[in-house]
Formats: sequence, C-alpha cells, structure tokens
Amino acid sequence: MENARSPLYAAIDLGSNSFHMLVVREVEGSVQTLAKIKRKVRLAAGLDSQRHLSDEAMQRGWDCLSLFAERLQDIDTNNIRIVATAALRSAKNADIFIANANRILGHPITVIKGEEEARTIYHGVAHTSGGKGKRLVVDIGGASTELIIGEGFDAAALTSLDMGCVTWLEQHFKDRSLTETSFKSAIEGAKQVLQPIVARYRELGWDICVGASGTVQALQEIMIAQGMDEVITLAKLHRLRQQAIGCHQLEELDIDGLTLERALVFPSGLSILIAIFEALEIESMTLAGGALREGLVYGMMKSMRKKDIRKRTIESIQSRYQLDTMHAQHVADTAENLLTQCGEEWVSEPIAKDMLITAAQLHELGMSIGFKQDGEHAAYLIKHLDLPGFTRAQKQLLAEMLRHYREQLHGVSAQNALSTISANRLLRLLRLAVILCHRRDQSAIPGVTLKASAKALTLSLPANWLTENPLMSAELALEAQRQCDHNWPLTVS
Amino acid sequence: MENARSPLYAAIDLGSNSFHMLVVREVEGSVQTLAKIKRKVRLAAGLDSQRHLSDEAMQRGWDCLSLFAERLQDIDTNNIRIVATAALRSAKNADIFIANANRILGHPITVIKGEEEARTIYHGVAHTSGGKGKRLVVDIGGASTELIIGEGFDAAALTSLDMGCVTWLEQHFKDRSLTETSFKSAIEGAKQVLQPIVARYRELGWDICVGASGTVQALQEIMIAQGMDEVITLAKLHRLRQQAIGCHQLEELDIDGLTLERALVFPSGLSILIAIFEALEIESMTLAGGALREGLVYGMMKSMRKKDIRKRTIESIQSRYQLDTMHAQHVADTAENLLTQCGEEWVSEPIAKDMLITAAQLHELGMSIGFKQDGEHAAYLIKHLDLPGFTRAQKQLLAEMLRHYREQLHGVSAQNALSTISANRLLRLLRLAVILCHRRDQSAIPGVTLKASAKALTLSLPANWLTENPLMSAELALEAQRQCDHNWPLTVS
Repeated sequence: MENARSPLYAAIDLGSNSFHMLVVREVEGSVQTLAKIKRKVRLAAGLDSQRHLSDEAMQRGWDCLSLFAERLQDIDTNNIRIVATAALRSAKNADIFIANANRILGHPITVIKGEEEARTIYHGVAHTSGGKGKRLVVDIGGASTELIIGEGFDAAALTSLDMGCVTWLEQHFKDRSLTETSFKSAIEGAKQVLQPIVARYRELGWDICVGASGTVQALQEIMIAQGMDEVITLAKLHRLRQQAIGCHQLEELDIDGLTLERALVFPSGLSILIAIFEALEIESMTLAGGALREGLVYGMMKSMRKKDIRKRTIESIQSRYQLDTMHAQHVADTAENLLTQCGEEWVSEPIAKDMLITAAQLHELGMSIGFKQDGEHAAYLIKHLDLPGFTRAQKQLLAEMLRHYREQLHGVSAQNALSTISANRLLRLLRLAVILCHRRDQSAIPGVTLKASAKALTLSLPANWLTENPLMSAELALEAQRQCDHNWPLTVS
Repeated sequence: MENARSPLYAAIDLGSNSFHMLVVREVEGSVQTLAKIKRKVRLAAGLDSQRHLSDEAMQRGWDCLSLFAERLQDIDTNNIRIVATAALRSAKNADIFIANANRILGHPITVIKGEEEARTIYHGVAHTSGGKGKRLVVDIGGASTELIIGEGFDAAALTSLDMGCVTWLEQHFKDRSLTETSFKSAIEGAKQVLQPIVARYRELGWDICVGASGTVQALQEIMIAQGMDEVITLAKLHRLRQQAIGCHQLEELDIDGLTLERALVFPSGLSILIAIFEALEIESMTLAGGALREGLVYGMMKSMRKKDIRKRTIESIQSRYQLDTMHAQHVADTAENLLTQCGEEWVSEPIAKDMLITAAQLHELGMSIGFKQDGEHAAYLIKHLDLPGFTRAQKQLLAEMLRHYREQLHGVSAQNALSTISANRLLRLLRLAVILCHRRDQSAIPGVTLKASAKALTLSLPANWLTENPLMSAELALEAQRQCDHNWPLTVS
C-alpha cells in the first residue's frame, strides 16, 4: 500500500445538551477516528417557556462553533455534515442563532426534522451493528427520543418524540429527589408520549432491539461494572431504579459503574427507557455501535455502502493487518466442514457457525504483531478494535478463541455469546482446522472424517496420510494429547 | 493494498545442538514469522573421539529433517536456505549424513565454513540491530563461537572458533560441579582459544558490541528478571558466576530468570563469555535482534537491502499501520525544531533527537487500534512489535513517550535509554508539537519560539495567532496547565 493520504471527513451534531465534532478518515474499509471535540453547551437549558433561546445560550453555542471552525478549514466541503436537532428545531429564534453560526463555521448547518434525525440514527446503527432480521432502534437524546423499525439499511417506521433525558429531568425530577413517585411520574409521562405509536410498532414487530444513546451506554457500563452480562432487560432496569431510589437524592446518586458525567440525566433517561420497554414489551436490548454522527459519516463515504457489515469488517481487518486471506479462507472452510460433520446438535446455537468462520478468517491476526504469544496479541486487538457488526459478547468470544487457537490449550473463558460448552467445542474445531491447513496450501489439506459423540471427537485421515506427513502427524498427536489432558477426548486415526 | 499473497521463505539451520526451521514472509518491509520448528537433535553429542557421527545421532537428524521436509514442499526453491554448521563441518562421516538428508529434504544442504557462518551471522545482526559505528558481534553456539568486527553491512574481520557451550560443558563441567576451579578452567581454556585473535581484534577496535546467541539472550532475561538493566557488563557476569557457584551442582542450578532449557549449557556459555569480555576488554554488550537464521532470511529478500535499518523499520510500521506519513513528518519536523531551539544542553544525549523524531513519526500508531486510549495501544504495539534497529531500552522509551503523547500528562517511567529528565523533556516537546500540528496541514503550523531555562519552557506564538485560532489556544492553555500541574512550568504567550 502506498501511504497515500486518505481524505478527512467531519460530522458535527448540535445537540440539545452538547455539541460534538467528529473527525475521521477511511482506512481500507474502516472508519478511523482522528479527533473528537465536545462541549457541554446546554442549549436546551437556555430555552424559556416561550421557546426563545437566551442570548447567553446562543453565545455558548457560537463560542463552541468557533473552535470547531478552526478544524473545519482543512476539510473538503463535500466531506462535512453539520446538523442541529431538537433544541434548534423548537427554538422560535433559531434563525438568529443559525445565521451567525453559519457565518462562524463557513459551512451551512442543517436543522433536521425529527424524521430525518431518526433516519440518520438508523443508518448509523445499520452501519455499525450486526444481527439479522427486523431491528428496533431506540435513541434517547437530551430533548427528543427516536424510535425506528427497519431491516438492513431500510427504515420502515421513523418516529421522533418530544421527550429526552434533559427535558424529563426538568419535568419529573425538578426537586432532585429520587422517589417511587418521581419515577412513576416520569415513566407514566413517557408512556403517554409513546401512546400514539405503540399499536403500530407492536404490529410491525422486530427480531432484535438495539439502543443507541448515552443512556443505554451508561446502562451497559453499569451492568458490566456490577458483573452482569451486556443484555439489557426490564428486570435489570427495575433493579437499577431501586438502586437509584435507595440513594434518595440525585446529588447522592452512587451506583457502581455510573460516571459523574452521566449521573444527572441517568434517572430521567432510565425512566424513559423503562416506559419504552413496558409500552413496547421489549424483551432485551443491546448497545448499538453508533448513531447520529456515525450515520452522517457513513452517509458521506460511498465506499462504505456494502450490504453485509460483518463481511465488510472482516475484509477490512484482513486488509489492514495484511493477513493471508487465502490461507484464512482454507482454515475457515476446513473448520466449517468439521463443524458440519459434527452435526447440528453438537453445537446448536445458530450464531456458532458464523463465529467459528470469523475466528478462522482472523486467526493469524496476532502474528501481525509478533509470532511469540500471537494469541495474546490477537485477543488484545479484537478487544480494542472497533468491529462493526459484532456485539461486545461476540467480540469477547472471538478474542478468547483467538487467544487459544494454537499452542498450549486453555478453555474459553469470560464470554457470553455462546454456552461455555459450545464455545470450547468451536475452539477444538478451530485448533484442528489450523493444524490440518498448516502447509498453507489447499491441495495439501487432507480429506478428513470427524465423528462427535458427547465430549469425544474421532478424527480419521486417509490411509498413509499420517506416515507420509510426519510433521502434521506429530502436531495432531500433540493436539490429541492436549485435548485429552483437558478432559476433551480426541482420537486421531 | 491488495491482499496479494506474499511469498514464503524458509531458513533451516542444522546446528550442533538443535535443528531449527524458520518460515517467514515479507510484509511491507518487515519480516513476519509464520512458523518456527525446533528439535533438540544433539548432533554434536553423537560425535565420538574420532569425530564420527553415531548412527543414532544421524537417525535423530534425519527424523527431524523429514518433519521440515513436509513444510518445505510448498515453498519456492529460490526462497529456501539450508545450512549446517560446526558438528557437520567436523564430522568425518558427514557425507553419509548429508547425502541422505538432501534426499529427505529435496533441497541441498550447504555445510558452511566457519568464516561463512560468521559472515551470515553478521548480516543477521546488521539487518536487525541499530547503532552507529564499528560493531563487534559475538555469537556463542553449541560447538563454535563466532567473533566479527564490521560496520554497516560490511564485515572486516570474521572468526569462527572451535569452542561452544556444548563442547565446553563436556570439557570443563563434565562432573557437573560448579566450583571456582571448574569455572577457572573453562574461562582459561576459552582464553587460550581466543589468544590468536586478541591482538588483531583489539587493534581493529569497535564502538558497540552486540551478542547474538542463546547464552546472551539467557543472560539478558536473567538480568531483567533480577531487576537489572539490559546492558551486559563484566561485573554482572562475575556476579552471575558467583550465583552459579553458590548452587554447587549443575542439577541444582537455580537462578532467577534462567529457564530450564538453558540451564545445562549456562555455566559453560557464561565462562566463554567472561573469557571474551576479559580477553578483548569489552565494556558492555547488548543483545542483537537476530543472527544466523535472520542472516539467511534477509539474504534472500532483495527488497530488504536498504542501508538504514531504523529508517526501513519506521517506514514499514508507518505503511503496515496505514499512518498518515505526511502529518507524522510535520510533527517530527516541528518537534525537532522545538528541540533545536531549546539548545543542546537542555537534552544532551546524542540519541535524544533520533528518539524524539521516531516517536513523532509513529505518534498516531495507537489510533490504528482505537481513538480511545490510543496511547496505551501504541505502547502495547511498540512493546511487542519487532523493531529492527532499536534496542530494548529504546523501544521502552518510545513506548513510554507514545503512551503519554496526548491527553492526561504522566511522566515517562520504566526506561533506561535516556535519563528520566531528558526523557520527560522530550515528552514535553512531543506533546507541544502534536498540538501545534493539530490541523494536520503544514501551512497551518504557526512559527513559534521556544525558550528553555532549567525546567521552565516559554512558547511564543505570532501576534493574533491565539485569538484567531481559539481551539489551538484552548489546547495550549490546557497543556500549559497540565505541564505546570506536573511541576514542569510552561508559559504560552
């Protein structure tokens, strides 16, 4: 690869609570963040009862935009998107703010309608989150909440509601007390706002639900800090509500994993989310990889318009880390073949095959850093890389499989994408596939038969193969010994 | 970059103690190891007093080679080098062994003369180790020891001596007792072997000395495990000899950091190294990044024949991690300019400028993994990547500088390439250079004046610059506050 300079892109979001600027570039099919600038402008707090923005609030906004303007100078106009949301949608004197803001930025701000905001959020989610089927997306902002149902890159229902964690804070937790009553008022209030769309959304239905906002992110951090898994359920939300009530006052809110920055709008955001879960009867929700700003960024990058996010991610990682894609595919095909031979009941989760193939396609990732302890390096990379299309739990599973894909055998730990039994079974197959492909030449992969019965695996190779291939024979014998020592019987014949 | 498959290379070394096979490929100017296969064949142990290899020893060798042969099948003949060293040089029936070995491998083995072995080792060192000036290279093998003096890629003196850690073990530690007497006999014996070359080598002289063998590697691991720095000195060698004598018996040898695998030949290797240090009056030695096998590998790769190893390494890393090289160079130029303005006495070590420029050229390395905590990611990569041309201490310094190059300020720790004061001063300049270049546009870097006096730095920017560039102004103000909080006064005006 030539070290050609890839162009910069900027997305600016003038939100009701904060203004954000994101500067990125495209690197071989991945979006790389180069700068994030954020200021808590609190524009919505400057709206009076007549929906007029105060001079002070406008000045805070303009001051922030002159910072952003400095970095916008060197970015191509076609690569810049600037949008304003709820607070500027509703302010009656927004035109005064916008006129001066446009002058400062040197680029036009688009005040997007609620529906457009919802559509952009949906695209941000679609470009960064995996999963198949119909998708319900929930984004709780400062002054608005978006609810979208879509599939792939197409949104079928787009709603933006006039409630957000900042406005709900002022309406239902004004005295800063955390009581059953204040939560009840906030939740019931949110349900009233939701009421007009409930029937239609339930009728449309969805297969998976993702949340794309600070509230959902804060929730996930809390759950992880408290040792729970990443899946948000109504039961967990109610448990957190009880923890909050136990603190009595907003100023005394002290929940493991909750950052100071999120604390103020946590009870109001939580109430809105509980209302959404109850009204729409949501079973579970996971965190999306992106939202509004990501929707703006991906919308500008033409090369990103591929349909399969996971495929794009894997290809990008293979390219960025100069992996031998041909060899990776041989290992993936071999692993898939072994899994098929073991039968569906041996590893029953539908996601398992995808995870095994992905692990195989990335199995030499750690060697890009170093041969020694390459499994550790791969796990480090998988843990910290942004992998659009894969959930946090799936990343953990991939990291654990790659950590132990060769050499000393340790079982997969610390993941909840699959049962431990299934994860370990996939690991056994991956390790065998890697050994069977060790010559890195498709024509040198033996046709094998693999029989699985409960824990035991029996691998049969063609007659004479083992004597004619003493290195593979030695490696398989060592692997059989390692799996047996781990109480995973493996016979090679 | 297209995911083109880069060709494989194999280097096989039939040593007196072990046979090694190394399979690598070239990735954008770096050598990436894909497989290492090693068997302790102990060929030299099968040599009788008439220098005849026993049938058993030959069979062990052939068995090992049939493993290697399996992996050689898919590698282009031009990309394979197979050499045999001391044991097969001296065995009278080597031709019997070689004839069958060639048949097994399907590729010819070259029994290289001592001088050729020394030259290849030197090339392996030259391609993987940095440092300027004349270089003394010491490689203590199982049955021979090579001593080379050279500069750049040219070796001026090539010597291979008939002593090694396996033969010295048998000659001087036969009864396995570790006493003053046995060490004395081993050291004096080695000095006699060295005697013929001492005068010539001392006359030629050298600027730096590197060791390239298991003995030196084991020593460095021990020193690090025992909390010493990486530089090997005679005083440290004598201290380790005393530790060994304190264990009385080879079977009871227990030294922090010494692996079981190296223990048997540790006292003999140590004795030879002490003799070399004393005879040649070596002041200090560091570990080389490669030796014989690396010399074979680099010798096959035409694209690797660049003169400046460090430059090649930096360019390779920039390319492999898709860094913005233009921006990196602007930061490097800016940092160098700041350093020059501070004056030579502010950071006096000669290596300092190189380290600052290198850190700047790689400063966005961590962003290739993720924007959040990119400093940690960069430190992880620098720690684990093979960086030919940089010593371990220099890698530690680079890792520490990149860990803290932006955001929260922490002083550089855990490195001994520079004084702590100098390392921290470089870090201050790097951080300033990054801020001054934040727009990623050369024309937007202000001309600045930097004055240094003891701890205090005063940075002056052109009139109006700060008011016209409020973001840089805010970033410099925050940086001044951070450096001042760290008791490193910084004034921006």
